[in-house]
Amino acid sequence: MEEKEISQAVIGRLPRYFRYLGELKDKGVERISSQDLSELMKVTASQIRQDFNNFGGFGQQGYGYNVEYLYNEIGKILGLDRQHNFIIIGAGNLGRALGNYLNFEKRGFIFQGMFDTDRQLVGKEVRGVKVMPMEELEQFIRENDIDIAVLTIPKEEAVSVAERLVGTQVRAIWNFAHVDLNVPPSIQVENVHLSDSLMKLSYNINRYANEQEKA
Amino acid sequence: MEEKEISQAVIGRLPRYFRYLGELKDKGVERISSQDLSELMKVTASQIRQDFNNFGGFGQQGYGYNVEYLYNEIGKILGLDRQHNFIIIGAGNLGRALGNYLNFEKRGFIFQGMFDTDRQLVGKEVRGVKVMPMEELEQFIRENDIDIAVLTIPKEEAVSVAERLVGTQVRAIWNFAHVDLNVPPSIQVENVHLSDSLMKLSYNINRYANEQEKA
Repeated sequence: MEEKEISQAVIGRLPRYFRYLGELKDKGVERISSQDLSELMKVTASQIRQDFNNFGGFGQQGYGYNVEYLYNEIGKILGLDRQHNFIIIGAGNLGRALGNYLNFEKRGFIFQGMFDTDRQLVGKEVRGVKVMPMEELEQFIRENDIDIAVLTIPKEEAVSVAERLVGTQVRAIWNFAHVDLNVPPSIQVENVHLSDSLMKLSYNINRYANEQEKA
Repeated sequence: MEEKEISQAVIGRLPRYFRYLGELKDKGVERISSQDLSELMKVTASQIRQDFNNFGGFGQQGYGYNVEYLYNEIGKILGLDRQHNFIIIGAGNLGRALGNYLNFEKRGFIFQGMFDTDRQLVGKEVRGVKVMPMEELEQFIRENDIDIAVLTIPKEEAVSVAERLVGTQVRAIWNFAHVDLNVPPSIQVENVHLSDSLMKLSYNINRYANEQEKA
């Protein structure tokens, strides 16, 4: 497969393809045309073909896509064919919610450890995983082959914890703190800024109301 | 201000501007040039000018932007100058995490009610808000001027709950269920698909490792 720079917009759409293909596979569907996939996913067939062309195509023209093949190939592109070990830093409600989320495990993301500065939380368990004090962070990462750290802590703490992670083997930060982190390119950062998402929602409520007033 | 169709990509960037401007404002900064804002936010000055031009510009050339004015204007565009009342459907860990999130309140999003099908959870409280049974959903929405419903329930339930919400005055769904919802255009949907976000992270870990191998 030829390698080229793929835009983050295309990457952002891959998990959605993966999700729909997984559902088709579970229903026993073996083949699907780009037209049918287009109707199901409510994106144009041309968008689907363009997206897939970034990865060499996948398809047999006029014959449709082999669902299982496509599902597996996209899974490989997404790195889901290997196991990822993650820790959650911050044992509050959000951290516990993510620790309890079994779907991540199905995709190969294994919840291995949890950390908190709060001594009252240390020793408690979330789905069999013990909350540890922050002093043990580096050693635990080293001994347990951790490659992803999930940050569910306030933004002030997130900045300094991210700096500590730079010196470890962690290769990615899934950041729920409401701040942009400055880390070297060797650490991938994916932000989930919940307030930003809620503001976008609020914008769209407003926009729709304004359009209705004028119509 | 002239009205035109603004792309969702631009909209998606507004909350980030709002966040940085809020921090500048809190630090007492009165004016900022697009160049300085560019360096702070790590986006090009031309991107900033292009984004702001969608809303008529905001800026005085050569003089920089008035931070507080810009902050307020973007806040208005995002609909943050009015109060939004929201309910959370699903009183599990994630629902409770969102209910406890005080930052939403600061932005004018007020947590008013919580619902769950689980009788064991009904009557419990999250930050002074009682969990109610699903039978009371429509009446509560009507009587409490609810315009946003947050769905933190499994995907099978999310589809049918979204259908119930269509008949109410709810104008937006903030959807954490791992499924795309089919609702009429009068209801705005903002998805937070956590698994999708994690897969994107995994893709970027992979991509970086492949690049390093080749370099």
